[in-house]
Amino acid sequence: MKLGFIGLGNMGSGIAANALAAGHEVTVYNRTAAKMQPLVQKGAKPANDIKGACGGEAVITMLADDNAVEGAAFGAEGIIAGLAKGAIHVCMSTIGAALSERLASAHADAGQRFVAAPVFGRPDAAAAAKLFIVAAGDKDAVDACMPVFNSIGQRTFYFGLKPQYANLVKLSGNFLIASVIEALGEAMALVGKAGIDLHQYLDLLTSTLFSAPVYQIYGNLIAGKKFEPAGFAAPLGQKDIRLALAAAETLRVPMPLASLLRDRFLTLLAGGGEALDWSAISQLAARDSGQA
Amino acid sequence: MKLGFIGLGNMGSGIAANALAAGHEVTVYNRTAAKMQPLVQKGAKPANDIKGACGGEAVITMLADDNAVEGAAFGAEGIIAGLAKGAIHVCMSTIGAALSERLASAHADAGQRFVAAPVFGRPDAAAAAKLFIVAAGDKDAVDACMPVFNSIGQRTFYFGLKPQYANLVKLSGNFLIASVIEALGEAMALVGKAGIDLHQYLDLLTSTLFSAPVYQIYGNLIAGKKFEPAGFAAPLGQKDIRLALAAAETLRVPMPLASLLRDRFLTLLAGGGEALDWSAISQLAARDSGQA
Amino acid sequence: MKLGFIGLGNMGSGIAANALAAGHEVTVYNRTAAKMQPLVQKGAKPANDIKGACGGEAVITMLADDNAVEGAAFGAEGIIAGLAKGAIHVCMSTIGAALSERLASAHADAGQRFVAAPVFGRPDAAAAAKLFIVAAGDKDAVDACMPVFNSIGQRTFYFGLKPQYANLVKLSGNFLIASVIEALGEAMALVGKAGIDLHQYLDLLTSTLFSAPVYQIYGNLIAGKKFEPAGFAAPLGQKDIRLALAAAETLRVPMPLASLLRDRFLTLLAGGGEALDWSAISQLAARDSGQA
Amino acid sequence: MKLGFIGLGNMGSGIAANALAAGHEVTVYNRTAAKMQPLVQKGAKPANDIKGACGGEAVITMLADDNAVEGAAFGAEGIIAGLAKGAIHVCMSTIGAALSERLASAHADAGQRFVAAPVFGRPDAAAAAKLFIVAAGDKDAVDACMPVFNSIGQRTFYFGLKPQYANLVKLSGNFLIASVIEALGEAMALVGKAGIDLHQYLDLLTSTLFSAPVYQIYGNLIAGKKFEPAGFAAPLGQKDIRLALAAAETLRVPMPLASLLRDRFLTLLAGGGEALDWSAISQLAARDSGQA
Repeated sequence: MKLGFIGLGNMGSGIAANALAAGHEVTVYNRTAAKMQPLVQKGAKPANDIKGACGGEAVITMLADDNAVEGAAFGAEGIIAGLAKGAIHVCMSTIGAALSERLASAHADAGQRFVAAPVFGRPDAAAAAKLFIVAAGDKDAVDACMPVFNSIGQRTFYFGLKPQYANLVKLSGNFLIASVIEALGEAMALVGKAGIDLHQYLDLLTSTLFSAPVYQIYGNLIAGKKFEPAGFAAPLGQKDIRLALAAAETLRVPMPLASLLRDRFLTLLAGGGEALDWSAISQLAARDSGQA
Repeated sequence: MKLGFIGLGNMGSGIAANALAAGHEVTVYNRTAAKMQPLVQKGAKPANDIKGACGGEAVITMLADDNAVEGAAFGAEGIIAGLAKGAIHVCMSTIGAALSERLASAHADAGQRFVAAPVFGRPDAAAAAKLFIVAAGDKDAVDACMPVFNSIGQRTFYFGLKPQYANLVKLSGNFLIASVIEALGEAMALVGKAGIDLHQYLDLLTSTLFSAPVYQIYGNLIAGKKFEPAGFAAPLGQKDIRLALAAAETLRVPMPLASLLRDRFLTLLAGGGEALDWSAISQLAARDSGQA
Repeated sequence: MKLGFIGLGNMGSGIAANALAAGHEVTVYNRTAAKMQPLVQKGAKPANDIKGACGGEAVITMLADDNAVEGAAFGAEGIIAGLAKGAIHVCMSTIGAALSERLASAHADAGQRFVAAPVFGRPDAAAAAKLFIVAAGDKDAVDACMPVFNSIGQRTFYFGLKPQYANLVKLSGNFLIASVIEALGEAMALVGKAGIDLHQYLDLLTSTLFSAPVYQIYGNLIAGKKFEPAGFAAPLGQKDIRLALAAAETLRVPMPLASLLRDRFLTLLAGGGEALDWSAISQLAARDSGQA
Repeated sequence: MKLGFIGLGNMGSGIAANALAAGHEVTVYNRTAAKMQPLVQKGAKPANDIKGACGGEAVITMLADDNAVEGAAFGAEGIIAGLAKGAIHVCMSTIGAALSERLASAHADAGQRFVAAPVFGRPDAAAAAKLFIVAAGDKDAVDACMPVFNSIGQRTFYFGLKPQYANLVKLSGNFLIASVIEALGEAMALVGKAGIDLHQYLDLLTSTLFSAPVYQIYGNLIAGKKFEPAGFAAPLGQKDIRLALAAAETLRVPMPLASLLRDRFLTLLAGGGEALDWSAISQLAARDSGQA
């Protein structure tokens, strides 16, 4: 497949490398040009600007947030202006449902197709082609992208014609992860203050009902109070809870646990936690209980 | 091992039957005598009163709540009055940390030993000898009980000398389960109101980061809105969150998510949900969003 | 003073009438032209469009929300394009702090002055010239407007040079009112379910520590469950809590009580409460406790 | 009236002194005998024990909490054992609704009468005979006590035959005060972080809709961050919110704002705030926003 790839951060670099390794013809673009080098050495073509990455059948964006995606997509030098009719924009960022709807509509107006395909998985999973991909949008467009998805992830879930469904699934999934972090934080604040060994406690949890990766990964970070370097930084967590709450507000769905998480992230950031992993919100319960 | 067994409800009947099947010599007692019959037919001896079940090396209690355990343990006709010196009281109920401390102290004063051994698992797991047992108390006493634990559960976790540690682990574990219920309830209220199929959503979750029994079991109940018959009734859930919060208050550990759960259970019960499974609190987010 | 007045809803009509009665020369504009008639009969000049109301020393806007103010201010046909250099835009709407900053900046770029002057008071207070005005912005500009403020309100509070300060004060004031509504709702759900007479309860409160208008006004609405017609409609309450939380997010100030109010308003709106007074969120505690 | 008076702390001393000054015949008892001296010098008779204060028509208790009242009332040396038939126990402490019911029942069984009469007002109001008294219980008994109530307070509110009603009113009143503290704390965290002067902000509030003593008193403490010496100490606030929540649990009334306050008080106490005024919970919002 002839692909453009825009956004070569921690996640994007791994994804693009895997697509390239699978034999796709990849043109890359990144605002900080130096990040293109490793991929160019593996055979990617470098583009000078966004439009330069929009000449193929599809362009994949893996950018930081709504603003970055909006900036790349719209305007005279943007993706919508650059893509051919019938070409596909695959947006893998975790963006808001509202922006996803706007993109779908704008691409449709331009005779193009829009696929939302956010992913579950941290940078190591991206590098190992072990991502889970949540895709939604035009069925033919998603089918056309499957060779790419298969080269970068371990499984793709298709959620139907409305691209924003994929974003809602991703945002609510991140909400569920953050809920686990908060719950473990409170539980460990309680048993830890009583004097129970946190690793032994976690071993029990993950050996019984809580045997999922989300408890293993985050339980270890929390029990070990290891929040640097960040696998997924606190500002990103704050952003995703904000986007989940924004979608919930539009749909009029009160989510008190999400509201609690919102306040936790604001507290973490107000206290200087910008560089920490988002799981550091777990320590607020411990702090409020007078521990460390 | 020569055992007494007091409390033959959904959980206790299965546990006693498995102990019996493993060859232990079991005397049973239950306030409603009819519930003793199935076990007597399998070889258990019936006792006429609590003391009648206290003649062996150990007596196991599996009673409904703090009041029931307190009533059975103390007083002239109670377990403490009935047990021999050196004998062991194994309390498998989910009781509060404070009562556990009181029991440990009272048994020690009487020259007896107290083991807290609450379990994870619903009645089907009890019947299948698949419980997880969380034990704490005198090490020798726990060791002495291991043949019994092995006959009724799949694994025993030992949490040290303080019996209340086992209760804290159990209570905080139930808090974690209830947190999953609430988080899934909110997430499904959001994606469900948007129109996403809840079973497809759950399939994604349990196929990826949330592949633990707690998500499979409760996710299916919630997606299917199936809360009757109750595997674990709402008043029991309310009780356990209350006990977790009571322990947290004693230790001065604020737990805002537990507070949210407390309010959810009160709402469920105030609305007539006595007979429902505790996972029915998940529907409050859906109700508040105007669904059903 | 030669004034324009844009926005003649419940609040704006009363304010404009009082300014007119005080002898100011007032040109009015409202999208729905019929609402201009009563004021024209009292001596106001009607304008055909926004620019037509921008020919004086100052223009006052009293519009519904951020979108309406943004729409009126920017663009080729907007206030900024229409005002003379040195003229003043007085924005009395309850808008967000961020928009207030944008307006201040845009007016400054155009050589104009911007005063934020939101008010406390319901429509009857507007009609009676009993509003409290919270003003911020250029000191000379505010001083120049004092004759107008004196004709429409009972007191003006000046909060300094940054216009957004006035908006923050107003938004946080509405947050405080909503907090009183929530607190009274919970307290009355408790004592009411016990069987205590709510009006007798309110009489005690307002005769002792809680002798302020906010308790008298809202206490009576809540005790009497009288939420129609709305003095301040639920969607406006929801909007203001949203704007308070948005400002708090920008400043990184977690506000858990504001988060609770946010969820209350979403619940009220999701349940069909669009037309009710915002104090109807008080009934959610009663509902959750199984009352009516 | 011939009265006993048990409990001579900050509140009790002032109340007893006023009753004495009004000409009532007062016998006092306090566990720490030294506190009886000032009253004895004013004409009170000292008692050697609780029973010694129970010889009159009524005995008033003003003790710290449920445990203290329970300890004084029950048992062979307690008030119930000591009072004559027909005599009245007036409990002015802020106790739980459940204990109030138990006391009413036990006194009735002993042929005595029980009046719950908690008060609003801090120690200075007690000393100045400016308390507000909330009374409930047998009408004749309350009427008989009115001369005493008139000598110690500025107004008495009668809430009917069920003594616990007075306690619910008092507890929910303290919940309302704590709600004001929390709301002001969050609002001031927001406007304060933006740079707005807190005293100017408070002046606006108390000059407009929030002109009640509760805003004046607590607003000044919060704006001035003056929490020592405590007028009403944090552990007492924590106790009262706990009792309010306990009553709400019994009645099945979810109170999320009370739950928030509960967590705030636990946080304050866990952080070493034992000696601070309860209004110090207001600073947690400021702390969480990175201020101070």
